[in-house]
Amino acid sequence: MVNIKLLKETISEIGELDQEVMEKAKARLDNLTKPPGSLGYLEDLAIQLAGIAGDIFPDVSKKEHIIMVGDHGVVKEGVSAFPQSITQAMVKNFLNGGAAVNVLARQHEINISIVDIGMVDRIEDEKVVQANVKRGTNNLLTGPAMSREQAVKSIEVGIEITNELIAQGAELIGTGEMGIGNTTPSSAIIKAATDLSLDQVVGFGTGLDEEGLANKKKVVKKALDVNQPDSQDGLDILSKVGGLEIGGMAGIMLAGARARRPVLIDGLISAAAALIAYLIEPKVVNFLIPSHKSVEPGHASLYNFLDMEPMFDLSMRLGEGTGAVLGMSIVESSNRIIKEMATFDTLDI
Amino acid sequence: MVNIKLLKETISEIGELDQEVMEKAKARLDNLTKPPGSLGYLEDLAIQLAGIAGDIFPDVSKKEHIIMVGDHGVVKEGVSAFPQSITQAMVKNFLNGGAAVNVLARQHEINISIVDIGMVDRIEDEKVVQANVKRGTNNLLTGPAMSREQAVKSIEVGIEITNELIAQGAELIGTGEMGIGNTTPSSAIIKAATDLSLDQVVGFGTGLDEEGLANKKKVVKKALDVNQPDSQDGLDILSKVGGLEIGGMAGIMLAGARARRPVLIDGLISAAAALIAYLIEPKVVNFLIPSHKSVEPGHASLYNFLDMEPMFDLSMRLGEGTGAVLGMSIVESSNRIIKEMATFDTLDI
Repeated sequence: MVNIKLLKETISEIGELDQEVMEKAKARLDNLTKPPGSLGYLEDLAIQLAGIAGDIFPDVSKKEHIIMVGDHGVVKEGVSAFPQSITQAMVKNFLNGGAAVNVLARQHEINISIVDIGMVDRIEDEKVVQANVKRGTNNLLTGPAMSREQAVKSIEVGIEITNELIAQGAELIGTGEMGIGNTTPSSAIIKAATDLSLDQVVGFGTGLDEEGLANKKKVVKKALDVNQPDSQDGLDILSKVGGLEIGGMAGIMLAGARARRPVLIDGLISAAAALIAYLIEPKVVNFLIPSHKSVEPGHASLYNFLDMEPMFDLSMRLGEGTGAVLGMSIVESSNRIIKEMATFDTLDI
Repeated sequence: MVNIKLLKETISEIGELDQEVMEKAKARLDNLTKPPGSLGYLEDLAIQLAGIAGDIFPDVSKKEHIIMVGDHGVVKEGVSAFPQSITQAMVKNFLNGGAAVNVLARQHEINISIVDIGMVDRIEDEKVVQANVKRGTNNLLTGPAMSREQAVKSIEVGIEITNELIAQGAELIGTGEMGIGNTTPSSAIIKAATDLSLDQVVGFGTGLDEEGLANKKKVVKKALDVNQPDSQDGLDILSKVGGLEIGGMAGIMLAGARARRPVLIDGLISAAAALIAYLIEPKVVNFLIPSHKSVEPGHASLYNFLDMEPMFDLSMRLGEGTGAVLGMSIVESSNRIIKEMATFDTLDI
């Protein structure tokens, strides 16, 4: 029997956007010193933030970015251009502040938490949140990546860490990940839930060649044939063809939604986590903000399926939450616009 | 005889991008702790910045945004949803810090200069740069918007102000404008130089209805019929169907290019200024960075013509330089990436 108490509680408490406050936010925006609607997506975002917080002037300046880290048994099938050891090396790089996500987070004054939720090797460092559920997934080509219990646990780890950060004041939350091989389970998740074509969901990842791409498509197809996940059951998909860091990010999203805090989606892997969260509780998407559109084809395909529109397209494909961190700066812009702009009645015409 | 000394000197000193330094920047980026190319446009931008500065680690943190303000005789033809008096009211709003561009500039620590280059009414305020060339353009439907001398002067005002800011340390420069009615001359400039269709270059501006749009198209067509600007002569186009703030922004771009400082393009009007600068000296475009893609159809059409790709599309259509200011933050991201990220040889694999 799966202990699923925290997850059940969390999803039962996810509410709706506050439509009345959103209308007030819209009215406020239309009275600011600019033609109505002329700030485009910044205005849509300010309305969404109002609906999330139940307040037309919510606070989003305390920004927390969570990086979930996990390894993948499927790397032995040659689905990644990099060896598994890079997962650990990159975590050390995060700890030293030398990765792209560190640089961008410093620019925008965003705190980073690094979580070992599924790494093969433990890193002894007080700055790593030790929350390992399993030392890497099983090879999803030969059976389930993890048990259903472990899938639930990975989500609950994300919920617990997010609840703790929110208790400490987090107002805006980013999702990111590290895990060599993790575009393969992400593509498998998207295909399992949407039945898009292999071409629509499988991409070059961090740098495969054409041969590598063809092999990756075969791996995704075979993983689904072998495991037969239930397209309606997020937990079944996550356990059979997912990853621990993907479960962790789904947990962040569900916990953010429950606490009415906006959560930024990053690239393909983070979006696959959003899909798992959506299958578990569809209302979660109202609290999510897509950041960039990645080069990975599955990313655009999935946003199309979820009827979401990413904010920007800088042709990025790095992960770590680099897009989410840039997106947080735009969310903050939108929030400052509704809070700080003058209204037409103060204008000297 | 037009006194054109400063303009001629400026364009004669515009150089090429430093290809050798750009190759070094590319090599550096490929050795950073990420898959080669995975930061997409941020990497392209870091290479361009290196080529502009002749340095793989240029400084771009001292950011200056210049707002050129001018009025337009053509407003009497009903081409704007707002009255001319809004130009002056918005300048007061800029001075009070209540406009959208002020809010976004504060977020990203960008200084703003406000220049009266062509307003109908003088505003007495020490924070306004008094550089008026003409108290509003003539109605371009009945003849040239200004003389060729005034067109040159407007560009030289932009050059002088930019040279002064660069002397004071400006490293990254944004262009913005205010001027009720100024999408009409911008569309006329683009059509004069490119012969794109009226549908491709004329849009709703700050909020015309369908009837207003049809009228605006007629005005643009008639202005070109009446004035017959020479499609190859930027000064002729600027004087006959342009605007003083458009000349001023063209001057900023030429001066930035001469001093090897990157200059951000904003929306339709700023892009029309880039087109004028390009017609005067094509090398200028290497030093320009397009920021957002505006809702105005002429903006995308022009970028297509100039073979430039805007960074992001937030469906904005406000002007003031709001897109340029957001873009400066992305330029800074790109600069921090090449400066601050760790290299693979420092990674513990």
